[in-house]
Amino acid sequence: MVIDLNSDLGEGFGVWPLTQDDALLDIVTSANVACGFHAGDPSVLRRVTALAAERGVRVGAQVAYRDLAGFGRRFIDVHPDELVNDVLYQIAALDGFARVAGTRVSYVKPHGALYNAIVTHAEQASAVVEAVKLYDPKLPVLGLPGSEWLRQAAAAGLTALSEAFADRAYTPTGTLVPRRLPGAVVADPDEVVRRAVRMATDGTVTATDGSTIKVDPRSLCVHGDTPGAVEIARRVRDALAEAKVILKPFS
Amino acid sequence: MVIDLNSDLGEGFGVWPLTQDDALLDIVTSANVACGFHAGDPSVLRRVTALAAERGVRVGAQVAYRDLAGFGRRFIDVHPDELVNDVLYQIAALDGFARVAGTRVSYVKPHGALYNAIVTHAEQASAVVEAVKLYDPKLPVLGLPGSEWLRQAAAAGLTALSEAFADRAYTPTGTLVPRRLPGAVVADPDEVVRRAVRMATDGTVTATDGSTIKVDPRSLCVHGDTPGAVEIARRVRDALAEAKVILKPFS
Amino acid sequence: MVIDLNSDLGEGFGVWPLTQDDALLDIVTSANVACGFHAGDPSVLRRVTALAAERGVRVGAQVAYRDLAGFGRRFIDVHPDELVNDVLYQIAALDGFARVAGTRVSYVKPHGALYNAIVTHAEQASAVVEAVKLYDPKLPVLGLPGSEWLRQAAAAGLTALSEAFADRAYTPTGTLVPRRLPGAVVADPDEVVRRAVRMATDGTVTATDGSTIKVDPRSLCVHGDTPGAVEIARRVRDALAEAKVILKPFS
Amino acid sequence: MVIDLNSDLGEGFGVWPLTQDDALLDIVTSANVACGFHAGDPSVLRRVTALAAERGVRVGAQVAYRDLAGFGRRFIDVHPDELVNDVLYQIAALDGFARVAGTRVSYVKPHGALYNAIVTHAEQASAVVEAVKLYDPKLPVLGLPGSEWLRQAAAAGLTALSEAFADRAYTPTGTLVPRRLPGAVVADPDEVVRRAVRMATDGTVTATDGSTIKVDPRSLCVHGDTPGAVEIARRVRDALAEAKVILKPFS
Repeated sequence: MVIDLNSDLGEGFGVWPLTQDDALLDIVTSANVACGFHAGDPSVLRRVTALAAERGVRVGAQVAYRDLAGFGRRFIDVHPDELVNDVLYQIAALDGFARVAGTRVSYVKPHGALYNAIVTHAEQASAVVEAVKLYDPKLPVLGLPGSEWLRQAAAAGLTALSEAFADRAYTPTGTLVPRRLPGAVVADPDEVVRRAVRMATDGTVTATDGSTIKVDPRSLCVHGDTPGAVEIARRVRDALAEAKVILKPFS
Repeated sequence: MVIDLNSDLGEGFGVWPLTQDDALLDIVTSANVACGFHAGDPSVLRRVTALAAERGVRVGAQVAYRDLAGFGRRFIDVHPDELVNDVLYQIAALDGFARVAGTRVSYVKPHGALYNAIVTHAEQASAVVEAVKLYDPKLPVLGLPGSEWLRQAAAAGLTALSEAFADRAYTPTGTLVPRRLPGAVVADPDEVVRRAVRMATDGTVTATDGSTIKVDPRSLCVHGDTPGAVEIARRVRDALAEAKVILKPFS
Repeated sequence: MVIDLNSDLGEGFGVWPLTQDDALLDIVTSANVACGFHAGDPSVLRRVTALAAERGVRVGAQVAYRDLAGFGRRFIDVHPDELVNDVLYQIAALDGFARVAGTRVSYVKPHGALYNAIVTHAEQASAVVEAVKLYDPKLPVLGLPGSEWLRQAAAAGLTALSEAFADRAYTPTGTLVPRRLPGAVVADPDEVVRRAVRMATDGTVTATDGSTIKVDPRSLCVHGDTPGAVEIARRVRDALAEAKVILKPFS
Repeated sequence: MVIDLNSDLGEGFGVWPLTQDDALLDIVTSANVACGFHAGDPSVLRRVTALAAERGVRVGAQVAYRDLAGFGRRFIDVHPDELVNDVLYQIAALDGFARVAGTRVSYVKPHGALYNAIVTHAEQASAVVEAVKLYDPKLPVLGLPGSEWLRQAAAAGLTALSEAFADRAYTPTGTLVPRRLPGAVVADPDEVVRRAVRMATDGTVTATDGSTIKVDPRSLCVHGDTPGAVEIARRVRDALAEAKVILKPFS
């Protein structure tokens, strides 16, 4: 049994810190690094890629809508032709820092509202796929199983990998319960750890209606934007080790 | 006799056009493409790098301060450590588009206030040199002869090349007369063409006090932000050809 | 017979001009001035409000999504609570310049994607209404007849006024034919002028299916982003005068 | 004996918090609210002005260079004509929120690099003075005693008021020791409290060479960007009360 642990990192901007980059880089195997469009100024990119490279953590491009004020969490009806270029710009910029750090961008994971939009928005999904293909068709991409994004990515010949969220509630059809609804986030740390182990060892999770659904993740996403979240991420890592799950990046 | 013709291109942003990219790409041998910090959104970068590649025009990174509102024309006292990363980010982002177009960023030329600052500002000059070295120490850089920027670039082992401006007045010490002073810009097209040919064939220009100064340019900078400027650029190109000067990129 | 002529002005940003502000301010009676979120830096606001005040042209706040890169033309799913504040910020900033020029912001007209969104998007329409009410409930607002925006504005006690577009095709239900469809824009200047006069004198326009629809505008919107558009705006103004329509601002 | 306590507030942006606005608004009598150029999105402005109004804390416009990435801490060589308008824009935008909250912007205090620049930069000082005069010549302004900024403000007829910093070291000429030098910030909370009381009761402070200098502040600036700073601010307030200094806003 093998799994990857990924986390959103490098999400500060200028004077404003956000993610606990140092702590998380000791826990995860893959770092989704913000590229400057929703967060992450160039000095953040430099620092996080260098730390990731030192620790052997893979660097992924966390591409987003251009929206610092909204942290990339608001759907923007960008024309797909422009979205291709916005995504290309972000991957390329981050890859420059990864090269300087002695590594490379080795996967792509969309952020926030873009991540959610391309679960169903075919034109925008196609734009992100096109950007990855143009930049490097050998880059794997990470997303929600069953999404338009992963479906199109696979159809285009990209390596399309599923991730799961141990701290999020799932609907019976395998989508995440939206954050604005009650019960969307699993608050109990013990429960989060149990779900993580089950996702990694059995590939399943219990949905909101009590049914068992298949998620078969190649990667688990853990959060690191609060000290409490870091502690949970550490416990998830330890519990996986105890369950004999091998932590290994996918790229 | 061999010379390069360079021009600042891709300086539109969103709905706002600026430079006559199509017309200039038929004239110049090197395109200094804006990278998004003073101008140039990702779709502009995509388009201009594609056109440049089609026509065999070299793509250079026109790196700038982060200042869309000021078009990079205002000195910003950025800390050198941050400036290194701001410049790296821009080169890398543009290089992504250049690769997609089948070419590469093949030189670096700072823009506007950054260009002027590093004529004398040692720390910022050092930061830009450091960024180029980190990204690719084989990238040539373009600047004003005698500048701190070219001096440090050469000392760091970069290929440091001089450029000259046929439409700008020179002081007796070889610096440009600042734009806010009268007579800073040579208005007469015939005079601009004559100066260009003399710069390319003889390496000299007449300064404001009547003295002859040595500029020895490897590249001439022509402007293309107005239809009139495009016409002058075309005449410069034709006059150079007539004078048996071979137009050839330096990179 | 009385009508107002309005136009989108002040839509340059930094080094990039766009609208023909000087020419249009000699033609229109109301200027929808960009407030900095989709276009319009503070120096543009200063200049356009001063020119408008000198000529007795009314200043309106052309409020928009925060999106310079997209010129406010892309729907953004901003939370209504934030949209209230984004709109308040823009009205207040512009009003500062209007006061300095000796006048006041005297109406509000949303721009681009926000204008289109609140034809039907009840929550965002409500947010813009709320912002106007908070800032000054005596400010009239301009919009498309039949829109959620005007309906809610009227229900909230604001003066809700209809505008019409002489150069845009109308569907049989009174909405504008979207710009991406063929025939959306009336290209023939003579036809634009005829439609303007009919809208002002008879309150009607012929829809795409040949039926006659009622638009009853208190204001006509004319464009001024090209020299050709300015010429048409001038002809519309002259034709209205000839038809004994009195040009008069509504505010 | 009367003094005002001021603090920089509202310096978050989007998802990123910074200043402990709630805690500080229970301590200070004047809030220097960020206006969106170095920090402070519209929803931050709304919230902080509302809280300040509820508690009777005065709202001041903390105007800055347009520089979110640098938090307004980097000198920008903005042309004075543009700086006038940048400052006007910020005051007017904040004043809109103050009005909605039932109060008004009642003073102006520049932020960061602009604050420091106009200690000596006459053209930029003049621009900020001009902006305040244009907006409302009855607005008091806050600054460093002896600065070009306060000198010009007074000469222009504005109410120019001095502030002092209990936690910053002073040179013998009355300027602040720059932050990058050792000993620039007074670390010992007891010492900060003692200096605050002495500044308020005696108008003096001991400079780095041991000499006594006159600062005669009408306001003391306290910081609130860390929980530790909030605690010190609270102790300063209590110690002033104990010393029979009356806390009273100047506006």
